[in-house]
Order: sequence, then C-alpha cells, then structure tokens
Amino acid sequence: MIYMDNAATSWPKPDSVYTNVLKTMKRYGANPGRSSHTMAVEAANILLYGREMLCQLFNVTDPFRMIFTYNTTDSLNLAIKGTLKKGDHVITTSMEHNSVIRPLMHLAEMEIETTIVSADSQGLLDPMDIEKSIRPNTRLIVTTHASNVTGSLMPIEEIGKIARNYGIYYLLDAAQTAGCLPIDLGKLPVDLVAMPGHKGLLGPQGTGVLYIREGVDLKQIREGGTGSQSESIYQPDFLPDRYESGTLNTPGIAGLGAGIEYILNKGQHKIMAHITNLEKLFVNAFSQMEGVKIYGPTNIKLRTGIISINIWDRDSREIVNILSQKYNIATRGSLHCSPLAHSTIGTKEQGTVRFSPGIYTTLEEVKACIKAVGEISRKIKIRSI
Amino acid sequence: MIYMDNAATSWPKPDSVYTNVLKTMKRYGANPGRSSHTMAVEAANILLYGREMLCQLFNVTDPFRMIFTYNTTDSLNLAIKGTLKKGDHVITTSMEHNSVIRPLMHLAEMEIETTIVSADSQGLLDPMDIEKSIRPNTRLIVTTHASNVTGSLMPIEEIGKIARNYGIYYLLDAAQTAGCLPIDLGKLPVDLVAMPGHKGLLGPQGTGVLYIREGVDLKQIREGGTGSQSESIYQPDFLPDRYESGTLNTPGIAGLGAGIEYILNKGQHKIMAHITNLEKLFVNAFSQMEGVKIYGPTNIKLRTGIISINIWDRDSREIVNILSQKYNIATRGSLHCSPLAHSTIGTKEQGTVRFSPGIYTTLEEVKACIKAVGEISRKIKIRSI
Repeated sequence: MIYMDNAATSWPKPDSVYTNVLKTMKRYGANPGRSSHTMAVEAANILLYGREMLCQLFNVTDPFRMIFTYNTTDSLNLAIKGTLKKGDHVITTSMEHNSVIRPLMHLAEMEIETTIVSADSQGLLDPMDIEKSIRPNTRLIVTTHASNVTGSLMPIEEIGKIARNYGIYYLLDAAQTAGCLPIDLGKLPVDLVAMPGHKGLLGPQGTGVLYIREGVDLKQIREGGTGSQSESIYQPDFLPDRYESGTLNTPGIAGLGAGIEYILNKGQHKIMAHITNLEKLFVNAFSQMEGVKIYGPTNIKLRTGIISINIWDRDSREIVNILSQKYNIATRGSLHCSPLAHSTIGTKEQGTVRFSPGIYTTLEEVKACIKAVGEISRKIKIRSI
Repeated sequence: MIYMDNAATSWPKPDSVYTNVLKTMKRYGANPGRSSHTMAVEAANILLYGREMLCQLFNVTDPFRMIFTYNTTDSLNLAIKGTLKKGDHVITTSMEHNSVIRPLMHLAEMEIETTIVSADSQGLLDPMDIEKSIRPNTRLIVTTHASNVTGSLMPIEEIGKIARNYGIYYLLDAAQTAGCLPIDLGKLPVDLVAMPGHKGLLGPQGTGVLYIREGVDLKQIREGGTGSQSESIYQPDFLPDRYESGTLNTPGIAGLGAGIEYILNKGQHKIMAHITNLEKLFVNAFSQMEGVKIYGPTNIKLRTGIISINIWDRDSREIVNILSQKYNIATRGSLHCSPLAHSTIGTKEQGTVRFSPGIYTTLEEVKACIKAVGEISRKIKIRSI
C-alpha cells in the first residue's frame, strides 16, 4: 500500500518508536509518579524523557511546561476553555479544524463571542484582518499553523506580534506542523501550542501535548489524582500536575520520545527538505494535469506537506475509493473536519482528495500517485469510470 | 521483582495485549473513522472490537454506549461535569479517590454542592446514610465500587436502587473492580460507569471507558473533530462521536480489547478465585502478625484485591522503600490519592502500605511478601531498622 494520509496519522513510525512502546509496557509497566518502587520510578523517568525530547526540539528550557494530553483536541480544549471566561472575545480564522471551531461554538452558549477572520481562496490569511478584529474584550487569538485542507501556512510570527502588542494570548494549533517545521518557542511570540504526538512527531496515537508559556493564566479542565499533594482534596496548582490528572499514556509517551529523538538525530531540516521535494513534484504535476484542480497557495513557500485536489467534478470520496481499491493508495477525501476551510476554498460540496506524504514516502510512491491521478482523470474524461 | 501494585496498573499484561498493540501500530496504523481507505477502515474496526469486548464482559447490547476516554479520571470528569449544572446537589462518600473528590470540589465554585457520606473505620458504607442525604435538588450519586485504600466493597446494588427510586443518576467508579469483579450492566441499577483500561481489564495505560446508559442526559466536555458530520461546526449529538473527539488511542484500544478477550477466555470467576485466594493468605497472615495493622473489612466477602497495612508506627513510605530496595517488592505507600479515605480509617499521617496482587501473582510471591513484612516488623521491634 502507498500511504498518503500522514496528515491524519504518520505511518509507519521509526522502529525505535515500536521498540520503546513495547519495552515500556513490558519492562516499565508501572504507574509513573504513584509510588517510589523501582519500576514506578522508571515509568516516571519515561515521562521526563518525553518532556526533555520536546524541550530539545522546540527550544524550551522548562520541561514541566510541556503538558501531556490525550490528543491535540484535548490540548485545544484545555487551552481554549482554560483561558476564556464569560464575556470574553476570541479571534480565529476560516481555516481552522473543528477541534478549534467546535469548542468555540460551544462556548457561545457561555456568552463567549468568536470572530472568524476569512482567509482568501488559496487559504492565505492577512494578519491585518486579525488586528482589525481586536476588541477591548479580546482575550485569545487561535490559529492553525498550517491548514489541514490546503497546507497553507499562516503568518504566525506577525499574528504573534500583534497578540503581544495588545496583550492578548495567542494559541497555535500545530497539528500539521509540530515535528514537520522548525518551531522555536524560545523566539516565536506564541503563548500556547497544541500538538499531536502521532503526526509529525512520529509518536503513537493517544498522545498530545500542550505547551504553556510562563505567565499564562490557565485553568485546568480536568481534576483528579496526580500522585502529588495526595493529602489535599483540591487540584494542585503547579505544573505539570495541575493539567495532568489520572494515569498518563506512559507507553505512548515513550514512543513519542523515541519519535522526537529520531527527528533530532536525523535532523529536522533534512526531513523537511525531503517532504518539500515530494510536495513540489505533486504540485508541479497536478498543476499541469487536465481535469485536476489543486488547492492552496501556488507559491510553494507558503504551503507545507499537504496536497489537496479534485478531479473534474467528481465527489472526492469517490476518487479516494478508486485510489484505495484500484491503486492501493491511501488518501483522505470529504471535508477533513474543517467545514469553514472548505467554504473558503469553495469545496464544501465536493470535498478534496488529500495527499499527505511522510518521512518514509519515496519518490516512486509519489510518481505512482501522480500516474494514478492522471489515469483516473483521463478515464473520467472519456467516461470510462 | 515481585509486583504488588496492580491497583495502580496491572502488570504484566497477557502476551496478546503486547502483540495487539504492536500489530495495530505496525499494520493498522491509520486514523480510524477519518477516511475510507483500507487501513483507516481496519483501524476503525479495532475500535469496534474494543467496544464489543467491553459489551460482552459487562453484558451491554449497544457498543456505542461504551465511550473511549483517556483514563478513568477523564471518564469521571465527563460523567460528573456532563450531568451537573449550577444549583445541583451531589452525594458521594468518604472513600472516594481524588478523581471524584477533586472535580466535585472544583464544581463548588459553580454552586454545585456536595455531601460526603462517611464510611465506618473499616471503610464500609451504610446505604441508608446515602438515602438520608438526598435533597430535592440531588441530581447525582457517585461512589466507588471498591476503595483503592482498603479494598472495601460499597453496597452498590442498594445505592443503585435508592438512586432509581428517587430518579437520581448513579455514577459508579469501577477503577478497582472493572475486569476483577463481575459487573452485569444488564441488571445493575447504575447509569454511568467509569473504568480504567489499564488495571483489571489488562489493557495498556492511556485507555479509559465511560459506559452511558440510554436516557442519561449527558453534555460532552470536549468538542472537536469526530470524522462525522464534518460539514457542521457543531458537535454531533449521537454516540459515541459526541463524547469522542480527536484521534483515539487506537493501539491502546487494540490492547484493551485483547486484555478483555483474555479475561473472557480465561473466565472471570477463575481469575477472581485466584485473587481472592491470595488475598485470604495476606489477610490471614497480616491479621496475626505482631506490629502489623491491617485495614479494611475483617469479613473477606466485603473486600477485594487490596491489602493495606502499616507496620508499627513507621511511615508507610519508609516501608515501601525498604520493601523495594531490600526485597525487590513493588508496593505503594503514602495516601493513594484518597485523603478522605485515610481520614476515615485513621491513616492520614502514616498512609498505608498497599499490596495489590494481580492475575499473574503466584502463591510463592505472596509468601515472600508475608515473610518480608514479618522480618521488617521484627527488625523494627528490636530497632535494627
């Protein structure tokens, strides 16, 4: 099978990820932070290893500012609900995933108002439109780093500077970029970063991260046992315990640590260059192909790792099925959980067929995809599909 | 190492758990429910497999009433916060874990009042005390099934009947019993059951479950992408999607399914009999040992799988360290995240040393533990430790 669905979950993982998950379950299978016996201490060390790997990759000094969560959605819910209160105003964009939009729509019930700033038809955003939407009660700006539909990159540095100028928190949804693009949290003016463990960071599913910058006033959304201050019936107020209740996914975090270590060893720029090369091939081929419409920025520098297309007027789900059944190519169709992004680029009905190559994708696989799409397009033209 | 910390996390797991986790990561590594390509469909089938195993073990017909969560704490937060609103009253017990007490204490800020009904010094509860605490605005009763400190069993059938009579929801925290004791949800009058995947159900960490009985009015606490109704910016209202946002821990759930399948194949009564036998050995030996105080019910039928002790007046953490370093025995000390339970049994200062055998614990291991405790007790008496 040719796997082109890395934007949903990266696959396969480096061998060390599998090994570390298994080793942790078999050898360090105790509950981290809940006792002082040897295996419990070893399990606690695995959490620290995961945090330290994150700190190295994202240039963060305090490992306890890296909070482990269930997934990016969990991180985003924590960041959004933990910062906002009744009467607050939020600014977000029309390129967001439902993991941002749905919590915000839910908060409308609590008199928290959202302004959705529109991107253009390439999925690109003018940071000035963010600034123009700021009100006296704006407490939070939330944007994705790169759209999961078009791959278009958001002007996050500019948005971050605007947020800083106005004393507004900036939450970055790095679902499509963490691990894939360099993110230097020592420099980037963002306050909160939500990321998945199982995409660009190459860890297993069931792992998410929220980075919380010092000084951010964030309520927890989940209380429970933390293995700390056990004499107290109140949630502890220190990091990471305040935000990490209940038993964490220790084997998953061991795998995540190994995934990040792989990236650090291999060199993030090398991985990036590989994906960009494959992306260029896709973009160049699809741009010139009859019957194929490619979405997102035409300028390759403004996009990353995601290639969304449609073939003639066919429903994207139909094409995904043909690619899977006839060519053994795994892509994703339909609306990618981002309805507003599809409205923005005009694909709310058709959806898009999304190709997302990964670190293990080869040149040959990309060529096979391009060939398949060409074939399908020609067959549709002569009505033989 | 002799592992006696199964109440924190069961270890080791059946081989099929390791195999299934690994196979899922390697072969079915796609994102479940997010596309129609072959591997995504296979990943979706794994979730269904996990749900079906749960349904078999707990006698539930609709697999979509089994909601996958991050851990028991996540399940409890969902159940508690999803049912309660401003002005409601909740009844709980003095034997609860902080995963119940801390969310309730947090909700006090929202004018949700909690009555904590006291158990006796053996950790046993009189269901009449629950009934006496009911008020017109009581919406929820939450109790553990078995205390994680004393192993004392709560009178859950009686409490359930009381809840039914008054039209109050009953949430059961099955953290210490799911998988260990038969729980027939076809008969038991409970409305919500929170359970860990990684304890008695023998799955990996990073897995939790919430059972939601039909008719329970439960708000979600996390919104996001569900792979369903992607055209909508609002959370879907059907199960399981309403409560399962973001990418689930598919490998973990594969392991959980294998853990439950192991229990089903082995026979839950056989596993129970094994643990009860070991427990009896512990209870009989510790009850007669000089300098050793054993907590919880003296009647073995009123307790399950957990043996908490203290040796003379020594801090439980000191004993845990001696057991770990000198005897290579893994136990848990201190307050077990249940401060009220320790107040109830009078161990708020000392904590308790907790032994929790598991399915793979052998008779010889229990004997070695008993011998070690005897030795430590004698040495403390003659002041040689």
